[in-house]
Formats: sequence, structure tokens, C-alpha cells
Amino acid sequence: MAVEAHDVEGRDLREHVIALLEERGVRLRDIAEIVYAIQKDYQPGLTLDGCLDSVYEVLRKREVQYALLTGIALDQLAERGQVPEPLGSILIADSPLYGIDEVLALAITNVYGSIGFTNFGYLDKRKIGILAELHNLGGAGGRVNTFLDDLVAGVAAAAASRLAHHWHHAE
Amino acid sequence: MAVEAHDVEGRDLREHVIALLEERGVRLRDIAEIVYAIQKDYQPGLTLDGCLDSVYEVLRKREVQYALLTGIALDQLAERGQVPEPLGSILIADSPLYGIDEVLALAITNVYGSIGFTNFGYLDKRKIGILAELHNLGGAGGRVNTFLDDLVAGVAAAAASRLAHHWHHAE
Amino acid sequence: MAVEAHDVEGRDLREHVIALLEERGVRLRDIAEIVYAIQKDYQPGLTLDGCLDSVYEVLRKREVQYALLTGIALDQLAERGQVPEPLGSILIADSPLYGIDEVLALAITNVYGSIGFTNFGYLDKRKIGILAELHNLGGAGGRVNTFLDDLVAGVAAAAASRLAHHWHHAE
Amino acid sequence: MAVEAHDVEGRDLREHVIALLEERGVRLRDIAEIVYAIQKDYQPGLTLDGCLDSVYEVLRKREVQYALLTGIALDQLAERGQVPEPLGSILIADSPLYGIDEVLALAITNVYGSIGFTNFGYLDKRKIGILAELHNLGGAGGRVNTFLDDLVAGVAAAAASRLAHHWHHAE
Repeated sequence: MAVEAHDVEGRDLREHVIALLEERGVRLRDIAEIVYAIQKDYQPGLTLDGCLDSVYEVLRKREVQYALLTGIALDQLAERGQVPEPLGSILIADSPLYGIDEVLALAITNVYGSIGFTNFGYLDKRKIGILAELHNLGGAGGRVNTFLDDLVAGVAAAAASRLAHHWHHAE
Repeated sequence: MAVEAHDVEGRDLREHVIALLEERGVRLRDIAEIVYAIQKDYQPGLTLDGCLDSVYEVLRKREVQYALLTGIALDQLAERGQVPEPLGSILIADSPLYGIDEVLALAITNVYGSIGFTNFGYLDKRKIGILAELHNLGGAGGRVNTFLDDLVAGVAAAAASRLAHHWHHAE
Repeated sequence: MAVEAHDVEGRDLREHVIALLEERGVRLRDIAEIVYAIQKDYQPGLTLDGCLDSVYEVLRKREVQYALLTGIALDQLAERGQVPEPLGSILIADSPLYGIDEVLALAITNVYGSIGFTNFGYLDKRKIGILAELHNLGGAGGRVNTFLDDLVAGVAAAAASRLAHHWHHAE
Repeated sequence: MAVEAHDVEGRDLREHVIALLEERGVRLRDIAEIVYAIQKDYQPGLTLDGCLDSVYEVLRKREVQYALLTGIALDQLAERGQVPEPLGSILIADSPLYGIDEVLALAITNVYGSIGFTNFGYLDKRKIGILAELHNLGGAGGRVNTFLDDLVAGVAAAAASRLAHHWHHAE
């Protein structure tokens, strides 16, 4: 069976990941708004719908899906008290030295090349839009978002990089 | 309080990680034997004890400890059937496309610079010593070693890189 | 102007990169043979032409093209004695601790996700096919291949990862 | 000869790298000021001298030295018109899609673990202190700083990560 390059990645798993993100309080539109905020100054005519399409494409990549499934599972298991100690407490505290959340986010950002790193770091520090909400909710009422905020920043950074690559080509 | 550069990392957490590795069937000596196997041709006079010291030093790094704690927790939670689906089944099957196990292993290998990547990839493919046992045990009797074999390869690769850096300096 | 996802990357630059590789003694077929050697046991029915197509697709990625242009330029400049010291001598000696050649190769391998790291490390150590020739030629008659052998291994590893992603999907 | 863990890296090459940075308009104090700006809110009592020490320690790592030597050489060779086309023009234009400058900077940031990525991305976007000067000077009067500004951001991010690791340990 011949398979086209753009048909390769997992489409059904994407729908599962999108549902999981919504369950954790993140709509694709929230991610698209971050993309728009960081990319609009570089791309005249950029629309929120264009950003939404880019987020949707990023979520087709298997590596992205697996990073999201893994990080969100760790957040959920930490909430349920099922992660062995001392890791459980480290995840609940969202320790700034933990770093494995950033490692997973970078696996996402990598997929569109190294220009995404800059966007990821900036987002992780500035916590634009939904990122601030996720970060502030983490720890409140037993909620753990240690991985989720970094992963969402990673997806937004990747979607912005993807737009930048397209835009420069189409010029 | 003044802190020396070489005193920084977590020493107590190291002992916990070593106990956890033993619980999962990996002694430091097993890792040292891998290091010896890949490094002995490059360093005349290298001893197994020298390799053991290097493994012990690698385990002092916080990033290494966190990667090990996280990956081994995922293996254990998958064994207990506590990882949400479809991730639970992906971990149990040790799917070759999963890739997040390699991502964590590379966070370990990174700590001694990029020359460790080569050793990691070679070990991951050739499965020297304990790596073959871990890989074969994975899936047997409900055992999940999806992360463990990559993480151990990552520690061995980092310890070999550390020796290479020292040896070239001491020449 | 609407741009399809698979139309994004630089096509003309690809032809330039292919000509540059040939000038340095590497034909796409040489790279395809490496891909075939490492991938054939996992994919029944794989052909050399299928590997060649995959190499050609990898070379369409801008990040891959830039890594190749940069590394090969450094090899050429070192041959001409134009790289400032002590870097010039480090490149000519192909010092095993240098590591920046592996860093560029990993930027290539990254593009198809983390499963490519394993293949890269294995190739870098085993030096299959053209890789052995490149490595042995380096240093002979003023030739510098410090970057080229790692970059070619990186392209082959990426092309193998790409095939693995397709094949698992098509099963 | 016994070699202590903290004696391993190249000390003489560090002095060469420091001289090279000064020749390109960057004093260690400029880098320390960036570190102070991003780290002071997290570490009460942090001093500029403490930041300077951390920058100095980061520059002892061989991987860091090699990344700096390589990137600065490419800037210099591009200024002299010695980099083959089309790479020469890409470097002179400091194309936002080039990305290899970020790849080298991340090899620096990696050395103190993944928490440095966030600082790097933030610095690369906000261009604090000397980073703005370097960026603005690039292109002026034939000056090429395509690699230098990213590399300096990478060193500052690594020095900040190193301080964060020490500070949390000493608490």
C-alpha cells in the first residue's frame, strides 16, 4: 500500500488527544490564541483561524501525541496520589529544578526545527493567556498541571514555528 | 553558605535512585560492565572500578535522578495497570515508535555533552550485557521495562563520555 | 497564497545540497544503501528505491539543508586553512571530544522524532558503507570530513525513522 | 595520574575563549549582567560578582568552549566573505529560519540541564542588555553577529541554571 508523506501520522489518536486536552481545561482555540499573540507581529494578515489550523496540524504528529499523553498521564496520576514517592511530591510541588516537563515540551517543539525553542522559552517564562491560568490552577484544590502548562507552551511554539516556515516560503 | 561546584547535586536522592534501580534488577556493577565494554578499547588501563566510580558520579546529577525516577515510575504504573489508556497499552507493548523513553534517556546523556549520543544509540541497538536481559524481561510475566532499558543505556553512555573527557585531559 | 503542508520546504536549495554532497564524494544512493542496511530487517519488502525516496524527502527539510550547508562549509574552510586557530586544528584532527559535529547531525535526526537517535548513534559507531570511506578519507591528503560523516549518518538515520513511521502506519 | 571531577575541563582554552569574546565586544561582566537581570527575583542576596563567577564556571566546560569557537568562527568567516554561497548570504542576513545558531546555543544550555531552555528562549526573544547591542550591530558596517548573540544568550542561560541548582541545594 502506498502511503503519502502527509498521511503518515496518527489521525484517530489526535482526536483522543484533543478530547484529553479539553478534559484538562485546554481548548485548541486557547492554544491558537497564544500562537496568534506571539506570531502576529511577524506575519501581517495572520488570522486566529490560521493559527488554529496550525495547532491542529502539529497535533497530527505522533511524537507530539505521545509527549502529550505521557505528561498529562503523569499529572493525573500525581493528582490521584498514585505516583511513587518522592516523585509524587516533586510533581505536586512543580519544583523549578525538575526539568523533565521541559524535556517533553522540547520533544514537541523539536518537530518543526530549532527556531521553536525561542518561542517555547519565551512562553514558558511569560505565561501568555491560558498558560497563566494553567500555572495558577496547578496546586489549587489538588490539581496538578506540572506537565500540562509546558506541553501546551510546546504545542503553541511548534505551531508558531510551522507558520513561520510556511510564511517565509510563500512570500 | 558557600557551596562548592562539586557539592551541588542531590546526594541523598542518589541513594534512593540506586535502591530503586536494584529493586528493578539493575546493580551499579551491571551498568559499569557496559561502560567497560564500550570504553576499554579507547582507554588502556581502564578498570571496572574506574567505570563504577564514573557511574556513581553520573548518578549525582539531579537531571539524571529525575529522569530515572520518572521513567521507572511510568514502568511501575504500567505494570500495575494504572496508566490511562491508550498510553498504558503503548508502554506495555514497548512500541518502537513511542520515543519518549529515548527522550528521557537523552536528557541523561546530554549532561556530559553530545559525544554521549553516539554511545547511547549504539547501546540501544546492540543491547550489551544487562540491557539484553532488561529488554527480554520486558513483557514477560507482566514486567514492563520500556523506560528502564533506555535509561540504563543513557547512564552508561553518560558515564563513558565522562571517562572520555577525563582521560583526554589527563593524557 | 495557500501553501500545502508538504510544499513548504526549500526545493531549489535541495538540489544545491545534493550537488554539494556529490562534490564531497557522497551520492544519494550511498546514503540509501546505509538506510537499507539498517532498516531491511524491520521492513519486509523494503527496496533500495524506497530508501532513496526517503533520503530525498529528508533533504527537503530546511533544517536539514542548513545543517548540511554549515557543516560541509566548516570542513571545506578547514581544508583551505581558513578556520581560525585553535578550531582549525581541532577540525583537521577530528578530535573525539569536539562534539559539535554530533550536535549538527542531531538537528537533522530530530526532524523525524527521537527514534532516529538510536540509528544515528549506531551508524556513528559502526560506520556502515560510505561512512567508513568518509571517515578513513578524513585526514588523508589534506581532506577534512569531520562534519560530513556525522551529517551523512544523521540523514540516513532520519530517512530510516521516516520509513519506520510510514511502515507502522501502513501495516 | 588521578584527575578530580572538577579539574577535567580545559582551563587554557577558557582564557582563549574569553579573549575571543572580548575581541567580539563581549566582556564577562556583560554576560553576568544578563544573568543578574533574569535571576535576581528568584535569589534574594544574589550579587553581580556571584553571577560573574557562574559565567566563569560555565566557560570551563569543553562543550561550551567548542560551541563558542565554532559559532564565532562562522561569524568571522562570513564577515570576511569566505563562507561559500548561499550559506554566506544566509549568515549575513541572520535569517530567522536558519536555526543552526540556536542549535549551537542549546548545546551550551544543555550542560546544566533542561531548566536552562526556558531562560535561553526568553533571552533570545527579549534581548536584554548586551544582547540587544549585538543584535543591532549585526549587519552594521559589515559586522556579522548571527551566532554570537545566541551563544551569549546560551552562556547566560546556563550560568543562571547553574545558580538555580546551587541555590536550591544550599537553602
